[in-house]
Amino acid sequence: MPNKPPRPVIDAGSTIGILGSGQLGRMLAMAAAELGFRTHIYSPEDRSPAGQVANFETCAPYDDLPTLSAFAAEVDVVTFEFENVPAETAAHLNKVGKIFPDPSVLRVAQDRLIEKQFLQWIGEQTAPFADITSLADLEKAVKTIGTPAVLKTRRFGYDGKGQVIIRDISQCSSAYEQIERAPAILEGFVKFDREISVIGARSANGDMKCYDPGENIHANHILKTTIAPARIAPELAARAQATARNIMDRLDYVGVIGVELFEMDAGDLVVNEIAPRVHNSGHWTQDACAVGQFEQHIRAICHWPLGDPTRHGDVVMTNLLGPDVKQWPSLAAQSDTCLHLYGKRVAREGRKMGHVNHLFPLGQVEWSD
Amino acid sequence: MPNKPPRPVIDAGSTIGILGSGQLGRMLAMAAAELGFRTHIYSPEDRSPAGQVANFETCAPYDDLPTLSAFAAEVDVVTFEFENVPAETAAHLNKVGKIFPDPSVLRVAQDRLIEKQFLQWIGEQTAPFADITSLADLEKAVKTIGTPAVLKTRRFGYDGKGQVIIRDISQCSSAYEQIERAPAILEGFVKFDREISVIGARSANGDMKCYDPGENIHANHILKTTIAPARIAPELAARAQATARNIMDRLDYVGVIGVELFEMDAGDLVVNEIAPRVHNSGHWTQDACAVGQFEQHIRAICHWPLGDPTRHGDVVMTNLLGPDVKQWPSLAAQSDTCLHLYGKRVAREGRKMGHVNHLFPLGQVEWSD
Repeated sequence: MPNKPPRPVIDAGSTIGILGSGQLGRMLAMAAAELGFRTHIYSPEDRSPAGQVANFETCAPYDDLPTLSAFAAEVDVVTFEFENVPAETAAHLNKVGKIFPDPSVLRVAQDRLIEKQFLQWIGEQTAPFADITSLADLEKAVKTIGTPAVLKTRRFGYDGKGQVIIRDISQCSSAYEQIERAPAILEGFVKFDREISVIGARSANGDMKCYDPGENIHANHILKTTIAPARIAPELAARAQATARNIMDRLDYVGVIGVELFEMDAGDLVVNEIAPRVHNSGHWTQDACAVGQFEQHIRAICHWPLGDPTRHGDVVMTNLLGPDVKQWPSLAAQSDTCLHLYGKRVAREGRKMGHVNHLFPLGQVEWSD
Repeated sequence: MPNKPPRPVIDAGSTIGILGSGQLGRMLAMAAAELGFRTHIYSPEDRSPAGQVANFETCAPYDDLPTLSAFAAEVDVVTFEFENVPAETAAHLNKVGKIFPDPSVLRVAQDRLIEKQFLQWIGEQTAPFADITSLADLEKAVKTIGTPAVLKTRRFGYDGKGQVIIRDISQCSSAYEQIERAPAILEGFVKFDREISVIGARSANGDMKCYDPGENIHANHILKTTIAPARIAPELAARAQATARNIMDRLDYVGVIGVELFEMDAGDLVVNEIAPRVHNSGHWTQDACAVGQFEQHIRAICHWPLGDPTRHGDVVMTNLLGPDVKQWPSLAAQSDTCLHLYGKRVAREGRKMGHVNHLFPLGQVEWSD
């Protein structure tokens, strides 16, 4: 896509509105503040992680259109920390014309079927999948795709929620009941060697920057660790970044995006998921790059020059989930360790309470052919 | 001083009270938030740089004791961003027993005479100086110390304010009038090769960490640039750090301190000034170390383990003074450059509006014998 004329820069001192008030909104607000911006958080939650560090906070439901209008009138640009922004909310904010990335990307990212179809359309590889609107669809798809396969609701899935594994065709009925017969896809099980992700950024004028791919390790469907750089061949890393660029370009994307990919046995890359926002697997960039993903997103949506994504070190990011956060005294005592806690009071099992970036000199994380 | 039993840790999630609401308070609040703390800013200014990023803000005069009491009751620990905290304010807060560093250090840091006497007492070298309480004192001191010399008010001096150079004994009277016959010292002009500073930190249990000395370049009495590491011999760097440790130990200091020193022709080190707080010449630590000076101060006052002060790169910090801040678009476009803006609306001449840390690989800043 050819470069477009630059949009007018949103100056430091302006106010950035953020929908959502979790840790991603918190870290966006802090990165915005480092650049001299003011921030205004909009979310239904009171005493939220992001609200603690923002200038202004509006606590209201996402469907409260008059309050949304007032919020939009007070800020210079709006962004979001989560892809499940209700369509009506996004459409309403879009009328004032200052939301980035464009809410049209939410249509793709909120719906696993549309996401897969989009990826195929732009020439990227996905797992085999089928559209499921009935039990008959499901049984037919299991025959075609084979088992094991995963039944996933089209909407509102994250961290393994809304997913059921089908190991035998006899499980179709109970699986379909488990997802409450919601619109769904059946996805073939992908035997991958490694999950990697690329954090990319794109400006309204078409400039793009990608960080080095990170390698993700999950436990119980929740990201536990990202190793940067991923221990993959340089050629594969370049292909993964090219995929992220293709996705951003075809979406006419503005902001930071997270693209999860599987490295297959044969060296193929399969796109798993697109997150139209800053991404947990990009938290390592905060401490290993001059400009991390949160600042990069703020730069992109404010039409600033994108930052250089070069790493100045290798890094292992580890999420502190639930009671893990109690380890903070020993983590704080370690050298080369950057501790980030989200200001959440209750350490429920599996809840993302913080993360830690352990830094190493460049070249310590090694790839061997 | 022998190590003392550890004080109880102030947990993440607690609230840190900060006196003062400028850029230092702002960066302290942001560093506290990274560790999951809440912050409460107390200052007379509304819409301040620090208030923008804090959870809570009290706007009231420093001598409003009932409001100070209410503030102290709501926070778990108090610290300050500036050394000119009024003695009465500090004494009042000290009654509740949770202010770090101990306000007794303010007595030393607020008064150039006491500061110099303290330094001599602990065996550190200072410029020659004399106590001035009359014009007769001044004329006598000029004869002893020689010219050029600098007449400095004992209290409330910073960035070159409250200072008059005396080049000839005939200027004594007008110089003394210029400082409004305030209690003062006469300080001999020190012909130094270089100004360096050490940012140190000390815990209540006696643990100490010092960052590598930085080299400071001033313009119009205001810090313009700090180069880290300072281009000095390793032996001199070690001596400068030993001086900072001596000062911290003898003050039974808790928190981050800035110590400015002059490197003399003969390789002697002369202590210029002690700042009992995070220091402008330590801003480079934010981006070149896993734990920067702001987080280090929060760790120290909350009785957390001190962070490792090792640099992972060389760095040149440049202050953006007044209209310099307009350069941000070109600075934002540079690689390896970390931009920090303070959210101040009016770019008055000489006003500290932000700073930029330009990162280099280790070993790029060289010292040659």
